Amino acid sequence: MYYHDLRINGDRLRQSLEEMAHIGATPGGGVKRLALSDEDRLARDLFIQWLKDLRLHVTIDEMGNIFGRRAGTYDHLPPVLSGSHIDSQPKGGRFDGILGVMGALECLRTMEEMHITTDRPLVIVNWTNEEGCRFAPSMSSSGVWAGALDRDRVYNQTDLSGRRFVDELERIGYRGTAAARHEPLHAYYELHIEQGPVLEREKRTIGIPKGIVCVHWYDIHIEGEANQVGPTPMEGRHDALCTAAEMILRVDDLPRKMGGNLVATVGEIHNHPNSRNIIPDGVHFTVDIRSWDDALALHAWDDLRDDLEGIAAARGCPLRIEETCRVRHAPFDEKLMDRLADAADMLGYTKLHMVSGAGHDAIYINQIAPTAMIFVPSVGGRSHVEVEETSWQDCEAGTNVLLHCLLQSAHNR
Amino acid sequence: MYYHDLRINGDRLRQSLEEMAHIGATPGGGVKRLALSDEDRLARDLFIQWLKDLRLHVTIDEMGNIFGRRAGTYDHLPPVLSGSHIDSQPKGGRFDGILGVMGALECLRTMEEMHITTDRPLVIVNWTNEEGCRFAPSMSSSGVWAGALDRDRVYNQTDLSGRRFVDELERIGYRGTAAARHEPLHAYYELHIEQGPVLEREKRTIGIPKGIVCVHWYDIHIEGEANQVGPTPMEGRHDALCTAAEMILRVDDLPRKMGGNLVATVGEIHNHPNSRNIIPDGVHFTVDIRSWDDALALHAWDDLRDDLEGIAAARGCPLRIEETCRVRHAPFDEKLMDRLADAADMLGYTKLHMVSGAGHDAIYINQIAPTAMIFVPSVGGRSHVEVEETSWQDCEAGTNVLLHCLLQSAHNR
Repeated sequence: MYYHDLRINGDRLRQSLEEMAHIGATPGGGVKRLALSDEDRLARDLFIQWLKDLRLHVTIDEMGNIFGRRAGTYDHLPPVLSGSHIDSQPKGGRFDGILGVMGALECLRTMEEMHITTDRPLVIVNWTNEEGCRFAPSMSSSGVWAGALDRDRVYNQTDLSGRRFVDELERIGYRGTAAARHEPLHAYYELHIEQGPVLEREKRTIGIPKGIVCVHWYDIHIEGEANQVGPTPMEGRHDALCTAAEMILRVDDLPRKMGGNLVATVGEIHNHPNSRNIIPDGVHFTVDIRSWDDALALHAWDDLRDDLEGIAAARGCPLRIEETCRVRHAPFDEKLMDRLADAADMLGYTKLHMVSGAGHDAIYINQIAPTAMIFVPSVGGRSHVEVEETSWQDCEAGTNVLLHCLLQSAHNR
Repeated sequence: MYYHDLRINGDRLRQSLEEMAHIGATPGGGVKRLALSDEDRLARDLFIQWLKDLRLHVTIDEMGNIFGRRAGTYDHLPPVLSGSHIDSQPKGGRFDGILGVMGALECLRTMEEMHITTDRPLVIVNWTNEEGCRFAPSMSSSGVWAGALDRDRVYNQTDLSGRRFVDELERIGYRGTAAARHEPLHAYYELHIEQGPVLEREKRTIGIPKGIVCVHWYDIHIEGEANQVGPTPMEGRHDALCTAAEMILRVDDLPRKMGGNLVATVGEIHNHPNSRNIIPDGVHFTVDIRSWDDALALHAWDDLRDDLEGIAAARGCPLRIEETCRVRHAPFDEKLMDRLADAADMLGYTKLHMVSGAGHDAIYINQIAPTAMIFVPSVGGRSHVEVEETSWQDCEAGTNVLLHCLLQSAHNR
């Protein structure tokens, strides 16, 4: 049997999202719910209460990942997993991450309400520390669970005030006992806001990413020579900040130069001694390069590195480069993408095939199981900001698509 | 009578400088003696002990400026003043400021040792907070003393941790009772390291600045639009950091474009939210423009401002500009400069007429009395850094020039 007319309860979904948005609410209308903070703990406590209200079997693993399991008729079969993350950026929005957790919860609530039992078990998940803004790297706990990252390396990461990941995990009471080790999965779905302007621009409701672009991170360190600005002639200066400024413009120009679907950004810069009347003698900045085409991104980096070395030499400022992180592009499962497209059609929502420019926990789960994501529009393409917005109708639409995909995947065919 | 053969004691000068360099000594061989810190207090305590050893009459004014007065034969005559500052940059050197205080002290010690009595009284001074790196602005207490700055405004300045100037002055026990108000002065001399590469390059021992260049400070605020870097196409971005990078290169190019003896520098930059994967939505940076020619500096600023507005408009990033500080160029007293040149010739030191690119307390004293400065070479032109260096011979030479100028000016002719 199958339930073509089944829909989630949009009002209940909205209430859950609004209740979560109170935890860590910022004056600007967003949320600050940093990984392993008190706000993270409060939101987890509420989430677990809701899981228990549904009589789900709750497991917390050693990374603090929270799983809520709903038994299937054939309970020994590999389950269908869905979820996302509760943590946020320092001035984040009310939808990034939490929509995928509350969306999956709403699907299970709807099934419970309708007394639906699936063939396969269904599991809802909250992954710890997706954002990575407090503890690098991002997506650390789905990464450990999937076997891509080392648990102890993540445990020993410290935040800016020197607190260790593992100590903060312990402090908020979410260092569980279950091993963070993946088990066979039948499918993984993650509902998420797009975080870009494409769906809004194209006036589509459901985005079906064919995968996630590659992400290359570099750390650039420039050494200059400090001096009192007034008495030091322009000739012979070794100004680390001017050197960085030239480099930043090359990064910005890289996508135009390389062509293709590349983006390149400098988001972070540190200047030393950062004093109005001293010539800067040390600058550290970051480079983020993303593309669907791994080879293009590598080629762009080779080109950029030559440019950076040329600029550093011309300015007489020694250069040190770290290749901080390289994640290859992740193509999602074709069958699951087809299922998403069919569900959107059946539900009467417009859809668009696209790519995901942002990283998500799905990138790691994709390495061990069939994976797909559902995107819903971001108003103005804005995210990681307090004004991040997605309409309630679109949240509801994305959750309906998730519901039908979960039902299909959990049906033992 | 006059003492052509008189010389200061170079060893004693060196010992005093070395003893002071222990207070706030940094691992890199410099000093950290921030204004109104515990280190500043310790150095002041030692300085006052040395003033008392010379039986000078010590006065501390309400800005914490310390004066040591040596009576003259005609003690009612306006005195000759000399000194500089004890405070340093966070990673400063062992000569900036303190040389002018220890040099003047050594001159008085030499006179005492030789039982020389001058016609006019001689006063040695330590000005509070010349550097301005903890409490803006720089040269705040010579400025108040000369009537150019408002006492209460300086009192209420706070450091980065929110502590007020006046509270810290009180805390270290140096809020004196004497009014910070200038009295008639016959002359003011300030011995200082050059802080630039000119004397070393020209192989001269004594620099005679004809004055101090003008200093114009601006604060530039750029507003961008924050977004997750991955999903946001390059087109339509409003990246505040790229906008700033373009602007910084225009500042750097300004001296070449304008000609003349202009320098222009961006020393300080703040980027928001300064996160690797968020497009920057706010940058604040500083601009410092200096020239001997006030009109040229203003003309350069007009030209630069047009450029900045054009860049901001092209990038779609709103711009806000503050004109933080404008100090006109300060030409020193011709007669005192001639006296310096004569003393250098008489002592057999090579000399060079030049300008001072750095601000000094002399800039304010110059507004109320005949003023001149004596420069000695900075090794490699380096200052405001731990490796700041001036040879002991050059310290001695500069102090000998100061001694003979003090004697001449204090002689009632």
